[in-house]
Amino acid sequence: MTKRVLGIDPGLIHTGWAVVDSVGQSRKYVASGVILPKTKLPFAERLATIFQGITDLCEQFEPDECSIEITFVNKNPQTTLILGHARAAAIVAVANKNIPVFEYEPNKIKKALTGAGHADKSAVDKMVKILLPVANPKTPDEADAIAIALAHTNMMRLG
Amino acid sequence: MTKRVLGIDPGLIHTGWAVVDSVGQSRKYVASGVILPKTKLPFAERLATIFQGITDLCEQFEPDECSIEITFVNKNPQTTLILGHARAAAIVAVANKNIPVFEYEPNKIKKALTGAGHADKSAVDKMVKILLPVANPKTPDEADAIAIALAHTNMMRLG
Repeated sequence: MTKRVLGIDPGLIHTGWAVVDSVGQSRKYVASGVILPKTKLPFAERLATIFQGITDLCEQFEPDECSIEITFVNKNPQTTLILGHARAAAIVAVANKNIPVFEYEPNKIKKALTGAGHADKSAVDKMVKILLPVANPKTPDEADAIAIALAHTNMMRLG
Repeated sequence: MTKRVLGIDPGLIHTGWAVVDSVGQSRKYVASGVILPKTKLPFAERLATIFQGITDLCEQFEPDECSIEITFVNKNPQTTLILGHARAAAIVAVANKNIPVFEYEPNKIKKALTGAGHADKSAVDKMVKILLPVANPKTPDEADAIAIALAHTNMMRLG
């Protein structure tokens, strides 16, 4: 049985996305990219661009499930608040298509990919290359979205 | 010329809304209420409930403009982050209908209604009662949404 996962790495400037199929014991890279809302647009329209972009992806690829990182408040709570808006725009687009959204803490994603919750970024990138050599992400956000989708397929397998 | 304003006071538990018409020098209360996402639903579906509720209001009342408060990080940044998600769900619904969203700092809203940026809540409530005696909000969120809509009509008049 094939399960198609949409991974999202949200952001107001760059929202990375990736579609990965989980087929039995293997995974298959389907597509990935970045949504880039025009920075000159009003805030509301930038959020609407993310919403519309994710809506289009749901219609085009018909994912079964969506995977997204949980955001925690970091050193700059105002930046986190803006990220939360971008994240919500993406989540709403998926939920509005009745696709279940799975939210994971960042260290759970790292652990599901590398075995270590505190793995550094290069270890995560290496595992993504091993698991999905065909994927060739052009930006960090796209790479993170692939990792988030892959981590979900691993997590599903582990139950 | 009539301008119809949708005021929104977003929240994950209660999202207050109000529709107010600005007709020349006067305002007319149209409707108000609260969107209450079921608290047992997953987070994504609660956000989708807010999105769908605001979408339905836009279709039913066809507002010309929308007015919403700017959220600042307060003492509890994690709570602010959740509020940001609810706020984005509402904003995206409006922007997705190509209705302009006007964002105001809380003290600008108070000032537009009472003349004082640091007016207390009871002064705001009094002005709402004077300007729109017909409105009879049943909850604080509904009352705040009416205030936010009214403040926008005042702000538009002042330019």
